Amino acid sequence: MQIAATITEIRALVSQARKAGRTVGFVPTMGALHAGHVALIQAAVEQCDFVVVSLFVNPTQFGPGEDFEKYPRPLDQDLALCRAHGADAVFAPGRTEMYPRQNLTWVSVEKVSEPLCGRFRPGHFRGVATVCTKLFSIVGPDLAFFGQKDAQQVAVIQRMVADLNLPLEIVVCPTVREPDGLALSSRNQYLSPQERKEATVIYRALCRAAGLIRAGETDVAKITEQMHEVLRQVPALRIEYASVADAESLAELRQARGRVLVAVAGRLGSTRLIDNVVVDVGAH
Amino acid sequence: MQIAATITEIRALVSQARKAGRTVGFVPTMGALHAGHVALIQAAVEQCDFVVVSLFVNPTQFGPGEDFEKYPRPLDQDLALCRAHGADAVFAPGRTEMYPRQNLTWVSVEKVSEPLCGRFRPGHFRGVATVCTKLFSIVGPDLAFFGQKDAQQVAVIQRMVADLNLPLEIVVCPTVREPDGLALSSRNQYLSPQERKEATVIYRALCRAAGLIRAGETDVAKITEQMHEVLRQVPALRIEYASVADAESLAELRQARGRVLVAVAGRLGSTRLIDNVVVDVGAH
Repeated sequence: MQIAATITEIRALVSQARKAGRTVGFVPTMGALHAGHVALIQAAVEQCDFVVVSLFVNPTQFGPGEDFEKYPRPLDQDLALCRAHGADAVFAPGRTEMYPRQNLTWVSVEKVSEPLCGRFRPGHFRGVATVCTKLFSIVGPDLAFFGQKDAQQVAVIQRMVADLNLPLEIVVCPTVREPDGLALSSRNQYLSPQERKEATVIYRALCRAAGLIRAGETDVAKITEQMHEVLRQVPALRIEYASVADAESLAELRQARGRVLVAVAGRLGSTRLIDNVVVDVGAH
Repeated sequence: MQIAATITEIRALVSQARKAGRTVGFVPTMGALHAGHVALIQAAVEQCDFVVVSLFVNPTQFGPGEDFEKYPRPLDQDLALCRAHGADAVFAPGRTEMYPRQNLTWVSVEKVSEPLCGRFRPGHFRGVATVCTKLFSIVGPDLAFFGQKDAQQVAVIQRMVADLNLPLEIVVCPTVREPDGLALSSRNQYLSPQERKEATVIYRALCRAAGLIRAGETDVAKITEQMHEVLRQVPALRIEYASVADAESLAELRQARGRVLVAVAGRLGSTRLIDNVVVDVGAH
C-alpha cells in the first residue's frame, strides 16, 4: 500500500494504475475508521482494481463551535486498517495541501442541503460538496463509496454528481451497526458508558417508525409522534429532528409514499448522533 | 470533424482520442463565432492533438431581461468555421441535454466574481462557473482556451480551477480587435452603423489609461478621470464602470501596482460592451 501526502503524489499513483488499465475506486473519509468504513473499503476492493482511501478531516464542513479540533485522528491505526483490508493507496493530505490559500470557490446544492441536518449545521453540506468535488478532481475515480448512515450527505453528493456531470458513479453501502443497533460513527467514542447505552434509543425509534410504515401507516404526524414516544424514554437526548422525508429530494413529507427516509438527529451530552432507515412504501 | 449533440457521444469521441494517446484541447463557446474564437481554436490546434469546440448558449449565465432569447445562433456557419480551422469535434448540446432537471448545484467564486461586471450582472459568474464545471467534467480536457476579452470570466475560471483542483490548465489568448480597435464580440452585430462607429471610444479610453500608467501615473482617481474624459466624447454611451483592478484578484485599486486590469463596460442602445487591457506596472 502506498501513502501519498500530496496531490501530485496521489495523481501519479492513480495515473500509473490507469495506464495499466485498472479501474479506480475511491473511499473518501475523515479517518478514525471503524467497521462502517471497512465495509466501504471492502466494497471498493470487490468492485475496482485500484482502491484509494482518503483520510482528511475537512475544516470547511465544521461550523464554529463544532468538534473540528477534537475530532479523532488516529493515523497509524487508520493506515493499518486500510492496509489490512486491501487498499492500494492512501491519500492523507495536510490542511494546507487541500487549502493552500483562502478558499473562494464553493459548490452548493440547493434544497437537498436545506432540511434535516442542514437546519442545524449551516454551511456543513457546502463544505462537504466542495471538498468532495476537490477530492474527486484529485483522485479521478470511476466509483466513489459512501455510507447510507450519512443519508443527507449521500443525497447531496448524488445530486451534485448528476447536476455537474461529474464523471464518476456513487455507490451507497448499508449502515453498519453494533449488535444493539447503534449505527457506527467515529463520534461514538465521545460517549460516556451511560450515554453509550442510551444512544440505542435512536435506532429503536427508527424501527418503530419503519414497522408502522410497513404495516400501512402513511400519516407522518402519527409516525413521528410514535418516534417521539420512543425517544422520550431517554430524557437526556436533546432531539434535533425526527423526520420522514423523500429519500431522494429530502423534502419532508406529510404522507409517506415512495422511497422514504426516516431520520433522527439528537445530542447526548456534547455528542451529536444521527441515524436513518429507508423504507420503500411502494405506493406511488 | 465529428458533431456530438449528447454527452454520451462527446465522451465517447474524447475517450477514443485518449486511448490513441492524444492530448485534448477544449474551446468552450456560446457559438456566433468570430475571429476571436477562431484564434482560440487555432491555439488549441497548435497545442493539442484533439480539439473539441462546444457551442452552447448557457441559460444560467443570463439574467432576467438580458439577451438570452435574441443571442445569435448561426449553427451552420459556426460548424463551418470549426471545420475550416481544424477542430476535431464539436459538442452542440440542446438545453435539456445540459440541464435535464431543475439545476440545484451551483459553483460560485466569492470576491473575484463581485466587482466590475459582477455588480451589474448578479448571478452571471455563478452561471459561467457552473456551466464550465459541467463542460470540463463532460469533455475532460488537458487544456481549455479562453479569451482575455472576458477578463473577469478568465479570473473567475482560473480561481475556480485552482480552488477545486480541476485537472486541467487554462490558456488565455489575447483579445482580437477590429482594425479600429473595437474588441470582437458576438454582440457587436447588435450595433447600428452609428453605434458601431461610437463603440471604438471604449478602446480609446483604455489606451489613454494604459499610456498614463506606462508613463508612471499610479493614482487611479486620475487615471479613471482621464478615461471618463475620453468616454464623454460619446454621450450615448451609458458607462457601467471604468476601473483599474488587480488583474488576478480583481480587487479595485487606488494605486496602480503589479499586473493591473484596466476595464470598461457600458451600453450603447441596448447593446452591452466590455473591453480591457492588462498593464504590468512592474513595481511591487
